[in-house]
Amino acid sequence: TLRTEMEELYPADISGILDELEPESAHYLLSLLDKTVGAEILANLDQTERTNLLKLFTSAEIAPFINQMDSDDAVDVLNQQPIQVREEVIGFLEDREQARFILDLLHYEDGVAGSLMQKELIRINVNLTVNACIEEIRQQAEDVENVYAVYVVDDVGKLLGLVSLKKIVLARKNVKIADIYDDDIVFVETYRPVAEVAEVMQKYDLDAIPVVNVQQRLLGRITIDDVVDVITEQAEEDIQVISGLSGEVEEDDSVWERSKVQLPWLVAGAVGSLLAATVINGFQSELGKIAALAAFIPIIGSTGGNVGIQTSSLILQSLADTSGLSVSLGKRLLRTLLVAVINGLVVGLIAGAYTFIIGEPRLFFVVATSLLAVVMLASFMGTVTPLLLSRIGINPAVASGPFITTANDLIGIGVYFLIAQWLLAEV
Amino acid sequence: TLRTEMEELYPADISGILDELEPESAHYLLSLLDKTVGAEILANLDQTERTNLLKLFTSAEIAPFINQMDSDDAVDVLNQQPIQVREEVIGFLEDREQARFILDLLHYEDGVAGSLMQKELIRINVNLTVNACIEEIRQQAEDVENVYAVYVVDDVGKLLGLVSLKKIVLARKNVKIADIYDDDIVFVETYRPVAEVAEVMQKYDLDAIPVVNVQQRLLGRITIDDVVDVITEQAEEDIQVISGLSGEVEEDDSVWERSKVQLPWLVAGAVGSLLAATVINGFQSELGKIAALAAFIPIIGSTGGNVGIQTSSLILQSLADTSGLSVSLGKRLLRTLLVAVINGLVVGLIAGAYTFIIGEPRLFFVVATSLLAVVMLASFMGTVTPLLLSRIGINPAVASGPFITTANDLIGIGVYFLIAQWLLAEV
Ligand SMILES: [Mg+2]
Ligand SMILES: [Mg+2]
Ligand SMILES: [Mg+2]
Ligand SMILES: [Mg+2]
Ligand SMILES: [Mg+2]
Ligand SMILES: [Mg+2]
Ligand SMILES: [Mg+2]
Ligand SMILES: [Mg+2]
Ligand SMILES: [Mg+2]
Ligand SMILES: [Mg+2]
Ligand SMILES: [Mg+2]
Ligand SMILES: [Mg+2]
Ligand SMILES: [Mg+2]
Repeated sequence: TLRTEMEELYPADISGILDELEPESAHYLLSLLDKTVGAEILANLDQTERTNLLKLFTSAEIAPFINQMDSDDAVDVLNQQPIQVREEVIGFLEDREQARFILDLLHYEDGVAGSLMQKELIRINVNLTVNACIEEIRQQAEDVENVYAVYVVDDVGKLLGLVSLKKIVLARKNVKIADIYDDDIVFVETYRPVAEVAEVMQKYDLDAIPVVNVQQRLLGRITIDDVVDVITEQAEEDIQVISGLSGEVEEDDSVWERSKVQLPWLVAGAVGSLLAATVINGFQSELGKIAALAAFIPIIGSTGGNVGIQTSSLILQSLADTSGLSVSLGKRLLRTLLVAVINGLVVGLIAGAYTFIIGEPRLFFVVATSLLAVVMLASFMGTVTPLLLSRIGINPAVASGPFITTANDLIGIGVYFLIAQWLLAEV
Repeated sequence: TLRTEMEELYPADISGILDELEPESAHYLLSLLDKTVGAEILANLDQTERTNLLKLFTSAEIAPFINQMDSDDAVDVLNQQPIQVREEVIGFLEDREQARFILDLLHYEDGVAGSLMQKELIRINVNLTVNACIEEIRQQAEDVENVYAVYVVDDVGKLLGLVSLKKIVLARKNVKIADIYDDDIVFVETYRPVAEVAEVMQKYDLDAIPVVNVQQRLLGRITIDDVVDVITEQAEEDIQVISGLSGEVEEDDSVWERSKVQLPWLVAGAVGSLLAATVINGFQSELGKIAALAAFIPIIGSTGGNVGIQTSSLILQSLADTSGLSVSLGKRLLRTLLVAVINGLVVGLIAGAYTFIIGEPRLFFVVATSLLAVVMLASFMGTVTPLLLSRIGINPAVASGPFITTANDLIGIGVYFLIAQWLLAEV
């Protein structure tokens, strides 16, 4: 039957199938399955698909699934529901510990460690023995899927250290936890940014990290699988922002949805370019005298854009790597401008050579000087813009996308015509 | 003393410090430390820093560190050494099992599962008991840092399943492995691309994945910490490629190194733009008649570039997500071109309106039609280029960077002037 066939599959695979079905069919398939499996499938669904699907369920029908989820996933699902549904579902939960877990986790805002935390973990008092520890694992076995380690706390719940599961397997049963636990432990506070959690877990190769409050009391833990999801999402978001897409969209979304995320930047870019058009129009008399001036508009614009993206991307990368020693803005700019001088001279000389090829040698200095100036200006903008944006709390990746291209296009063309006007007037 | 102070730190933190020191000082600090800690520090160093540092060591001095490393890290380090050093070090290894492990792993090329695999794992014959299993864990305790699970094999070493460490803790000691092991297991073959390994581990939330040969014999395992590194590096590389940087570079590298990775694309972009210049020069008589034609060069170029980046980025994302149902090229193009019609009309009308503002209404149709055509062409290019590149085995992200911008700039300007010539001749 369909039911037995589905039970052959992993929940994550069933989620992949349900993602592609109409909510009604997904609803039917889900009703065939065991609640524990169903809970895992629901937790793995795409957010949009899940929201559409859950609209077909009453709160009483949602509750048994939430009951079986890990607390972190339960909170993620509930946070996407209307407040009324959320409260009703919590009221319907059979597992009252789960209800408490959820109420504990609901108030953490997106982007901080608390929002990734799950309450499921094995906790043991430092004064107990390995035997008591195994008993605790047995009792929590169903609730805590991946144990990894047992967290050691004192009488008031302060985190003291951990004992790895391997150590538990090998230890004699009557040994006291106090004698074997490892106090060299990495932990995070609930309010730390998730980027920092990811960095710490990656640096120390952790499979889970305990989360504590300001009194260092153990509140929960974050497992690496959820951090992997955060890292992937962040990378996708950065690339999307750099590519000038104003929201999350997939290639297979509807024509309207795609157009909606593409248009904002296209329109903004168009307005920027029309400002450049206004600049060019202001120099009609120069263009009238030397029509070949128009030929260099593309190289001015695209070089400025390319340099701006390269530079801002380097700054982005260095902002993301908080492990490095911090560099002063002055030093950053100095080095960047030195690079710009080299690059500007190379590109300027190539374009300058081209003025001879097309028989307009009088444009040599105009073109070469403009390109040097444009490369230097674009490098300056590419350095300062992301630093400024990140200072005021905007994702600095926006500076690597069409924004910097458009801005540099505009500035570059202005510089080019001003230099042209100036140098050609002298001649 | 310095030594005791360093021993208070985590190895990963010491690596961070050594990364910033001269190789000579790093060499001295490393010599103060225990070989096991030193091995972990070396494994965590930046590749360049490590290569420079190891030049100061003889092969006999390198061997004790390699001896203590996980086999996957040992192979990574040795692969960056000259062949002679590599062979000498392997000859000097005290731990002959480690030497065998390394020889097994050396031949996997970068980018396949085998290159991430470590030989350290706990393996147990299906006919044994939990007790034998614990004995095996005890014996391998030093060698296998994170156990996670015990892999179950038959008499010829074929992978049958696994028993989680949690289950081992809770099982009675005389229970047979055959009665408790989980045969629902996800594994990978050595030749699978690492991107696939990452996707599978992320999908099923795995902390480790067993690696098998074509006969499904267990060869090793891949742990999630190494996959996290791969995911991060891939994301960084994609952003770097999209940004037009031709190699790995950091903002704090020398001026020459930075210029070296920035110049290739700047020069390529310059050449592309000079081709556009040649096109523009070919239409001097049109420009002579209507100077305002030059004003629209920026919007044609930048819109083409922006659309190309947006579209190729969507395709990239959909190529990366192999879990989705595969879409035919025809359907992809159809949807993309529909999006392009909407976007092209919007941008075309905005720019068209501008022709009235600057008092050149006769350019309305030229500009609007050109932009529609440019957006459609750029969408087509943005769809086809990454698909083509990935088909011939080139990282399709290069299509999202300056390449697509430059190509679309050039094509767009050609289309614009052709349309101008054609429509204005009719008038
Ligand atoms: Mg979908
Ligand atoms: Mg959450
Ligand atoms: Mg529970
Ligand atoms: Mg200590
Ligand atoms: Mg790591
Ligand atoms: Mg979780
Ligand atoms: Mg460095
Ligand atoms: Mg390797
Ligand atoms: Mg070993
Ligand atoms: Mg996952
Ligand atoms: Mg999960
Ligand atoms: Mg490893
Ligand atoms: Mg490592």
